[in-house]
Amino acid sequence: MTNPNLTSEYKSFGGKLGFYSHPSSTCNGEMRFAVYQPPQATQKPVPVLYFLSGLASTEENFMIKAGAQQYAAKYGIMLVAPDTSPRNTGIPGEDDDSDFGTGAGFYVDATVEPWASHYRMYSYVVQELPALIAEHFPAQPDKQGIFGHSMGGHGALVCALRNPQQYKSVSAFAPIAAPMRCSWGEKAFSRYLGEDKESWRAYDASELVRQTEYHSPILIDQGTADKFLSQQLLPEVFEQVCAAVNQPLNLRYQDGYDHSYYFIASFIEDHIRHHALSLTV
Amino acid sequence: MTNPNLTSEYKSFGGKLGFYSHPSSTCNGEMRFAVYQPPQATQKPVPVLYFLSGLASTEENFMIKAGAQQYAAKYGIMLVAPDTSPRNTGIPGEDDDSDFGTGAGFYVDATVEPWASHYRMYSYVVQELPALIAEHFPAQPDKQGIFGHSMGGHGALVCALRNPQQYKSVSAFAPIAAPMRCSWGEKAFSRYLGEDKESWRAYDASELVRQTEYHSPILIDQGTADKFLSQQLLPEVFEQVCAAVNQPLNLRYQDGYDHSYYFIASFIEDHIRHHALSLTV
Repeated sequence: MTNPNLTSEYKSFGGKLGFYSHPSSTCNGEMRFAVYQPPQATQKPVPVLYFLSGLASTEENFMIKAGAQQYAAKYGIMLVAPDTSPRNTGIPGEDDDSDFGTGAGFYVDATVEPWASHYRMYSYVVQELPALIAEHFPAQPDKQGIFGHSMGGHGALVCALRNPQQYKSVSAFAPIAAPMRCSWGEKAFSRYLGEDKESWRAYDASELVRQTEYHSPILIDQGTADKFLSQQLLPEVFEQVCAAVNQPLNLRYQDGYDHSYYFIASFIEDHIRHHALSLTV
Repeated sequence: MTNPNLTSEYKSFGGKLGFYSHPSSTCNGEMRFAVYQPPQATQKPVPVLYFLSGLASTEENFMIKAGAQQYAAKYGIMLVAPDTSPRNTGIPGEDDDSDFGTGAGFYVDATVEPWASHYRMYSYVVQELPALIAEHFPAQPDKQGIFGHSMGGHGALVCALRNPQQYKSVSAFAPIAAPMRCSWGEKAFSRYLGEDKESWRAYDASELVRQTEYHSPILIDQGTADKFLSQQLLPEVFEQVCAAVNQPLNLRYQDGYDHSYYFIASFIEDHIRHHALSLTV
């Protein structure tokens, strides 16, 4: 595997934040990601916590806005934030919509052409990116956690529920918790995966949790003033299934918070502590 | 004074962050600013800490990137961040340069037309904005501090040194510490203030500190990997004058940090604590 290309680097809370690009075999083109290495990583390999961003984000948003680095530095955890989709693939119409195509990979492996040739974010996040991180960064590959926001909260739940041994911990901010039942999910899944809804179940946390027992409690924060709450996010669906199958879930409704990074920043400390409890033991 | 117009509002760390616009008599047009009210402000008036941003910033950058709200909430301090200049004044060429005109008001009262009709950021920051804050927000007008970054660090030092009784505390990140001796300052001052350099001294911290005794220690953080350090920022000039006049100064060189908000975020806690020590007694 060739070295990822470092495009910019910043010292942050005693560690270093780098932005990278690399040729992705999974996505058949260039992909970008950001890595924050805490100060402890200069001494020994550290656990890795992946953050999956929401619609229209890049690998930058989380690192600029969430205020996560200070807690990653405190607990000695590496943060990795991939971009939210391939870009500049040449697929006609890839930039037309804010909720499909560029910036909206939905963390699935598309099976419908032309998307299937590039839009394979599930395999990218679960396989290619962790292998690259393990090879090129001081990471403990057996200590991985994952979290995300909105579309990325959906992605984090799906990745963890399908790979519980790979991910020691999972949490989400305002995730799209039942994508088969909301318009964002229906649009993305029908175009990436086709009309056979059976194939959609592998990417719906509220379906997956029926079949999988995740080994540790799932933390979800959801703002009550989030304008997407009742139509797109549907945490109550996920909550009901978790209750039915006895999956431990800590779903916290945060009064008055919206869908923005101001909400994420307000609770990022709790989330990183949640992951640190599983990753740094 | 008419109510400022609330354009958006976000809950953040238990408090609320609002973005506002209002007709400014000082700047002869619409001005924008952001206010973070900590949770304590719902119970009683709180101290106010002004942050002046750097070149090309708006009232948003600090609130999105600095991670300041958590510490403002911890110490019970209101944060106010004005925009960095008037905008859309109609002055020919106002948008042509990144270091002059729009986004680059340099916190001076311009005396040269056409800029003098609008670019009066010094009076706006020192007089009009605090009066507006005192009238419309739960602020303690006798408890004000000020800090800033780069061009805004220059502005903070100038405002505090010229008005030591108004500002109980001052600090700066990578300030333009001797603007009469760098090209950014020379360009801005010559066009806003004219060619008579005597008039520039009122806006140069390294000149002002010769004549003014500021009542409490000044905190400055400066990254050693800041690409503007040796040509534009010149903290060593300010340091020498402070030493000569016995002005207490805590100038900290932070190894490996650059000029970005990643640097600011890494040390924002120290700065807000510095101000809290003066403002919350």
